[in-house]
Amino acid sequence: MDRIPILQVGDFLLVSIQVDMHDRLAMTLQDDLADQVVSKRASGVLIDISSLEVVDSFIGRMLGNMASMARVLGAEAVVVGMQPAVAITIVELGLSLTNVRTALNVDKGMELLRALVNPAAEEGGREHDQD
Amino acid sequence: MDRIPILQVGDFLLVSIQVDMHDRLAMTLQDDLADQVVSKRASGVLIDISSLEVVDSFIGRMLGNMASMARVLGAEAVVVGMQPAVAITIVELGLSLTNVRTALNVDKGMELLRALVNPAAEEGGREHDQD
Repeated sequence: MDRIPILQVGDFLLVSIQVDMHDRLAMTLQDDLADQVVSKRASGVLIDISSLEVVDSFIGRMLGNMASMARVLGAEAVVVGMQPAVAITIVELGLSLTNVRTALNVDKGMELLRALVNPAAEEGGREHDQD
Repeated sequence: MDRIPILQVGDFLLVSIQVDMHDRLAMTLQDDLADQVVSKRASGVLIDISSLEVVDSFIGRMLGNMASMARVLGAEAVVVGMQPAVAITIVELGLSLTNVRTALNVDKGMELLRALVNPAAEEGGREHDQD
């Protein structure tokens, strides 16, 4: 396993982290994600960490970095599926992740992304007139 | 790694296979998938195998089984992201996978699922009047 796949779902990218991330894998993922946000013109990134049972300060910081990177590239990022134990660890590590949006699962994360990316459409029932 | 996560995206379930599947992991995935199709009332299943670089007859048969299982539970299944080398291997193994629908990537797979699940809506430009 030398890289984590990044899936395109509509305008969004979906990363499902299933393996324990060693440092090089994490760096590769960051690079790949930045590349793909640009090349696929993604407007949002979903990072699913429902399989992660442990998290250390490195991974916590990486999540923050990926969200920030996505934002400077013009995409919104949402971390989804965080397990309660991981949330506790992140707080105990002193990583507040204030710049990271979270949602319960992929479905809710996608709703949140849609609302962030195109707030008018959400309010007005998917209107697309932008003149 | 004792199970592969199954993500819900709208009405569909998304399974991203990223690790080499040993037999027990594959059996667990089959069971989990059948459970989730029922409990989440999913109308479609996407199985992403873009990270799989090798496939043996067991995995090939498992893909067929998962697709058949989904179908008898009332959901459509699409395998997406198959690498050319994997396609060659599957044919050489004599697994025709005639009952498995495939698509290039998650995005196209999702389009295909939408068309399969709700053909009228696709033709008529997302109409939802079913009276």
